[in-house]
Amino acid sequence: MKDFIYHAPTEVVFGKESEEQVAGLVRKYGGHTVLVHYGGGSAKRSGLLDKICGLLEEGGLKTVLLGGVVPNPRLSKVHEGIDLCRMKKVDFILSVGGGSVIDSAKAIAYGVPYKGDVWDFYLGKADAVECLPMGCVLTIPAAGSEMSDGSVITNEDGGVKLGYGTQLCRQKFAIMNPERSFTLPPYQTAAGVTDMMMHTMERFFSPEDDMTLTDAVAEAVLRTMKACVFDVLKDPEDYRARAQIMWGGSLAHNDLTGCGLSGDWATHQLEHELSGMFDVTHGAGLAAIWPSWARYVLQQNVSRFVRFAVNVMDVPNDFTDPVGTALKGIEAMERFYHSIGMPINIPELIGRDITEAEIAEMVRKCSHNYTVTQGRFKVLQPEDMTAIYRMAARQA
Amino acid sequence: MKDFIYHAPTEVVFGKESEEQVAGLVRKYGGHTVLVHYGGGSAKRSGLLDKICGLLEEGGLKTVLLGGVVPNPRLSKVHEGIDLCRMKKVDFILSVGGGSVIDSAKAIAYGVPYKGDVWDFYLGKADAVECLPMGCVLTIPAAGSEMSDGSVITNEDGGVKLGYGTQLCRQKFAIMNPERSFTLPPYQTAAGVTDMMMHTMERFFSPEDDMTLTDAVAEAVLRTMKACVFDVLKDPEDYRARAQIMWGGSLAHNDLTGCGLSGDWATHQLEHELSGMFDVTHGAGLAAIWPSWARYVLQQNVSRFVRFAVNVMDVPNDFTDPVGTALKGIEAMERFYHSIGMPINIPELIGRDITEAEIAEMVRKCSHNYTVTQGRFKVLQPEDMTAIYRMAARQA
Repeated sequence: MKDFIYHAPTEVVFGKESEEQVAGLVRKYGGHTVLVHYGGGSAKRSGLLDKICGLLEEGGLKTVLLGGVVPNPRLSKVHEGIDLCRMKKVDFILSVGGGSVIDSAKAIAYGVPYKGDVWDFYLGKADAVECLPMGCVLTIPAAGSEMSDGSVITNEDGGVKLGYGTQLCRQKFAIMNPERSFTLPPYQTAAGVTDMMMHTMERFFSPEDDMTLTDAVAEAVLRTMKACVFDVLKDPEDYRARAQIMWGGSLAHNDLTGCGLSGDWATHQLEHELSGMFDVTHGAGLAAIWPSWARYVLQQNVSRFVRFAVNVMDVPNDFTDPVGTALKGIEAMERFYHSIGMPINIPELIGRDITEAEIAEMVRKCSHNYTVTQGRFKVLQPEDMTAIYRMAARQA
Repeated sequence: MKDFIYHAPTEVVFGKESEEQVAGLVRKYGGHTVLVHYGGGSAKRSGLLDKICGLLEEGGLKTVLLGGVVPNPRLSKVHEGIDLCRMKKVDFILSVGGGSVIDSAKAIAYGVPYKGDVWDFYLGKADAVECLPMGCVLTIPAAGSEMSDGSVITNEDGGVKLGYGTQLCRQKFAIMNPERSFTLPPYQTAAGVTDMMMHTMERFFSPEDDMTLTDAVAEAVLRTMKACVFDVLKDPEDYRARAQIMWGGSLAHNDLTGCGLSGDWATHQLEHELSGMFDVTHGAGLAAIWPSWARYVLQQNVSRFVRFAVNVMDVPNDFTDPVGTALKGIEAMERFYHSIGMPINIPELIGRDITEAEIAEMVRKCSHNYTVTQGRFKVLQPEDMTAIYRMAARQA
């Protein structure tokens, strides 16, 4: 068991019409001039953006708008946001959207008070010491950024996707109204659930396996997400199921499911190169990698995979054959991915075969020019990364 | 499902030697002159108190000591603390101990900036608007006060035990070193686990039963606590099991297991009168009441008790007989209580029969002179309280 710090101070305001409280919350956390940060047109088309801006202005707050954040959010948009915040003297950032919008906001919030280029933080060249306060109105449950300490930004110059995390960037509040996720298309819904489940699976597959309370909570989150995704794919307006998924996305990534564990995160790192190169949906990219990662690292701790198979995937435990039980858990996860429209390998993800040259390039980036390893459950050298990408390059 | 706010901002610093960080944490949260608040002699005897005071003083902080807090903490001690804090210009309260010490600290923290009597808050005559900042070094996992928003104080004048809760009194930090609970005697260990499990059971038995993620997390906490208590009763120095219990006590009561639920809390209210009258250990009092409460309210929502029986108590589900399955769950809980040395009725708790006059007096207090009901799963009128106390008055 690992010593840990657990500090998830975000105030979650959850339920129907929770967005009505937005102005009071921004004022409570010190905002006066608010950057309202959003993505594509859906927040605008649904009327949510106008509603939020109206509520803020009625509440005596100034608003500055910045839209156009795309999935795998771009550094150029972050720079644009930093300039805008400085020009308009913004003192609070409110994100309306999902993980991409919130991650972009976090980078802007780091960048505004920083004299250098905010990309320094993501490159590990500097550490942030301050940050604008932020809150969010969550519309896409997936990334968990609404309660997490992390953010991931893509530098278009070279397609480099890097993450940076500190306690500073925790959202002061997160407004979550499950109804706002009713219009999320099936593919995005499924990719979102895949992403949130992976946030917990990355923590579950740790070198430590003696923090049984965290394991039990993780399994509770995973089982519930797995059950609810079928309900919302059948009925996109199933409030109960949408609510479990929205709240599950936060619990999966606010560190609760990682207390006492180091976590692995190799699947995320391997996927970052995929979405950096092919601009695919992050959740789908994770599904395309995980089964190969799992088979590759299985022998590291078979009992951990047996626990996962039995407690999460409902595989009957064959006590005489732990490896067989573990493999059946991975196969069950593949069937689950397929059943919700997710890929289980790279060809299914990108619609064609991947070349050896592309794999080599991803390994080069993932290993930072062969200088770093990835993962903790099994520490992956560049040759391990190559092997996993090659496994994932084969059709099932 | 109920709309909810979840806001558990306490910074948890968990692990061996976590107390080494105490001075930095007090400074981080603005403390200069620190009331070090503790209970009986065990914190002193173990050397923990001296260590903490030494670390604070090395860290440039002034310390003021106040010990002698007893279980079911007294209003007179709270008044003493308020006077001391005002006299010494204390600006931070550090509790070293368990729920009684932290609850007492919360009342002191409310009282210092308040012009009237702090008991006003507990009587519902006034609402606190400010509060001294607080942190704690937890030594007794049970009450969950280290992350909760509540506190319970006993006014010796009349033996009245009342609770008061606001967001203001959340601890800024909670230092948790499982080793500090190694010396907890078996009875206190078992009563503590009973208390923490009840914090989650009070939330689980809600009028709402559609927040399946919260239910799954609650069951995870309950199952883990139930398993680990046997490990620590067998080996008091089992670090892994002590750690699960210490962290479980916080998760059981920081609201995580109540998201989307109203909660019931009748068992707690019925027990407060028992410990108000007989000064018994709170956890043991809960065990003496719950089985009678459960049988009395069972018909309100049989499927909820079936879920509890199957998912928490490992009772095989007899699909043809839900009431039978539910009752087996209650019986399994009684066997569990007995197996860890807890009572399952009032005679086992107080060592003699309880009189009708004593029951009448408890009902009078619990119903605030017949003016209030208790509970939400089933709303209990005074006659319901009488019926439950009478059931609990009978030997099994």
